Amino acid sequence: MRGAVMYGPGDVRVEDRNDPRIVDPTDAIIRVSVACVCGSDLWPYRGIGVGDDAWPMPMGHEYVGIVEEVGDEIATIRPGQFVVGSFWASDNTCTICRGGYQSACVNRVPMGALGAQAELLRVPLADGTLVATPDIPSHDLLPSLLAASDVLGTGWFAVVAAEAGPGKTVAVVGDGAVGLLAVLAAKQVGAERIIAMSRHEDRQRLAREFGATDIVEERGDEGVERIKELTDGLGAHSVVEAVGTQESMMQALHATRPGGHVGFVGVTHDVAVPGMDLFWSLAHLHGGPAPVRRFLPELIELIWNRTIEPGKVFDLELPLSDAAAGYEAMDERRAIKALLRP
Amino acid sequence: MRGAVMYGPGDVRVEDRNDPRIVDPTDAIIRVSVACVCGSDLWPYRGIGVGDDAWPMPMGHEYVGIVEEVGDEIATIRPGQFVVGSFWASDNTCTICRGGYQSACVNRVPMGALGAQAELLRVPLADGTLVATPDIPSHDLLPSLLAASDVLGTGWFAVVAAEAGPGKTVAVVGDGAVGLLAVLAAKQVGAERIIAMSRHEDRQRLAREFGATDIVEERGDEGVERIKELTDGLGAHSVVEAVGTQESMMQALHATRPGGHVGFVGVTHDVAVPGMDLFWSLAHLHGGPAPVRRFLPELIELIWNRTIEPGKVFDLELPLSDAAAGYEAMDERRAIKALLRP
Repeated sequence: MRGAVMYGPGDVRVEDRNDPRIVDPTDAIIRVSVACVCGSDLWPYRGIGVGDDAWPMPMGHEYVGIVEEVGDEIATIRPGQFVVGSFWASDNTCTICRGGYQSACVNRVPMGALGAQAELLRVPLADGTLVATPDIPSHDLLPSLLAASDVLGTGWFAVVAAEAGPGKTVAVVGDGAVGLLAVLAAKQVGAERIIAMSRHEDRQRLAREFGATDIVEERGDEGVERIKELTDGLGAHSVVEAVGTQESMMQALHATRPGGHVGFVGVTHDVAVPGMDLFWSLAHLHGGPAPVRRFLPELIELIWNRTIEPGKVFDLELPLSDAAAGYEAMDERRAIKALLRP
Repeated sequence: MRGAVMYGPGDVRVEDRNDPRIVDPTDAIIRVSVACVCGSDLWPYRGIGVGDDAWPMPMGHEYVGIVEEVGDEIATIRPGQFVVGSFWASDNTCTICRGGYQSACVNRVPMGALGAQAELLRVPLADGTLVATPDIPSHDLLPSLLAASDVLGTGWFAVVAAEAGPGKTVAVVGDGAVGLLAVLAAKQVGAERIIAMSRHEDRQRLAREFGATDIVEERGDEGVERIKELTDGLGAHSVVEAVGTQESMMQALHATRPGGHVGFVGVTHDVAVPGMDLFWSLAHLHGGPAPVRRFLPELIELIWNRTIEPGKVFDLELPLSDAAAGYEAMDERRAIKALLRP
């Protein structure tokens, strides 16, 4: 089969890889319908957070597709089903999974190591990991179902972690796909006011379409001041951090009112939260790798009913063979998110 | 009147100070029945976190006493009442106070600047700040009511921030007065298992008396391993951090299971929380200066009914004139907490 492999920073190739096979009896093999490039794929693409021994690495951890084959111990997933998974395979039965933190499942397997930007994909713990759609989806639903696999689920988690809800003002730091879908999620959970922090016109437009009521273009301390001006000097009730830099984390923390909540999902490379800032903020801080699996049934239903269309974040569509162009466009911020068709 | 003043690290003197007078019409003057030395008073005592221009500083922010005089705008507090306050004066009516974060009241005044280790004390925003007891308390209740003023209220907040409750395992990092009273609070909110982290026999004994079911003597990574061993390898549901050092914060974060909660109340001087530790922990982090006022009515009732006896943390009692000896004993960890009688 064909699959994307990164050989070093900036070096993505699509090449022949061995077809995946059932290894454990809890595995499934799926034929990937669509995959995509994640903002977090840009970390290794930029050479950040990876050791020299990491190369070459198969790429991709967002996927939807048709089940081809299942292992002997699979009880619920069947060949022929259309399924959505997420970036951690999880058993969905351990104490941590039952608590809603499938991304920290005691038996978790990182899907990124298996490489979802490919024609075929092995999914460990398939009964726990995969959620089948009611039927084979129509073509136009594919981008939105794919978004549920990571960026929507991650933005949704951030909004839940930030305890957004009716009567609340939510600020979103970051206008990538996750930030934009956090805006959509905040709208869905009934937030009263949604402030998108963005200085890119196309992303502002999409944020408004997804439910943003205000746009703040300023960043850093100026951005914090603008949020305070919009919230009687108090700060937002809920702030989503969807970037993962020191500046964005501090912006989120300082823009939150005392007793408010920061939901952070940006991968916090090179971030250190100063104790006294944290102390005096009196904010709640929660985040990390999103337990997307917790939200998948609800998200699939909202997409299936056409209540939400998160697939709008894909503004570039390429054949898998052109994966490198997708990385390049996202790295240069010419594209919000690139969809790949195997 | 007589009052304690710190002239520099290690230099506490009790001297004549001007009697406080009503400055704002929302003030009250109270005659302090008992005051005490706080663990946080040891920061300046050790020369940490204070500028050279801070000296001399009146000391003390924990107090109970009898109202002597009130300003013209005071509506609920009356002369002759016995009252409990806490370390932030707060109006208890602003949006932030109504949200339960009186320690970040938009009109807050730090009581520490006024110096509660004294015979008389001016309390700003007295209607919002002070809570009167049902009657003049009997002598033996004074230490416990004084504890409510800070250490009990702070330990209680940490336990609430850590979302302790029935069925949960709570670990407490720190065996000072706040940590010990967090054990008491965890017991009161119905925690199933309470692990006190302490290597001092007298403090372990008090922790057990307050409700600890387990004692862990190890610290740092070893302490974390012990907590994991006690919790099926998962970590505690709720962890209280009541020290304020880098080691104790990391110990708390790493001892928490994914989806669990850290409640931190140690003053986090020189602490920086590494972003990736925070990210992968999937813990909730909440804390800061405790909004003790939120809990005062409930705490006073529990003390008045003799359901709890937090005053047991005072293991040294001195006349105000010997305040310096109280600081010294706490600094050298010969005393858990020193009570001062003006």
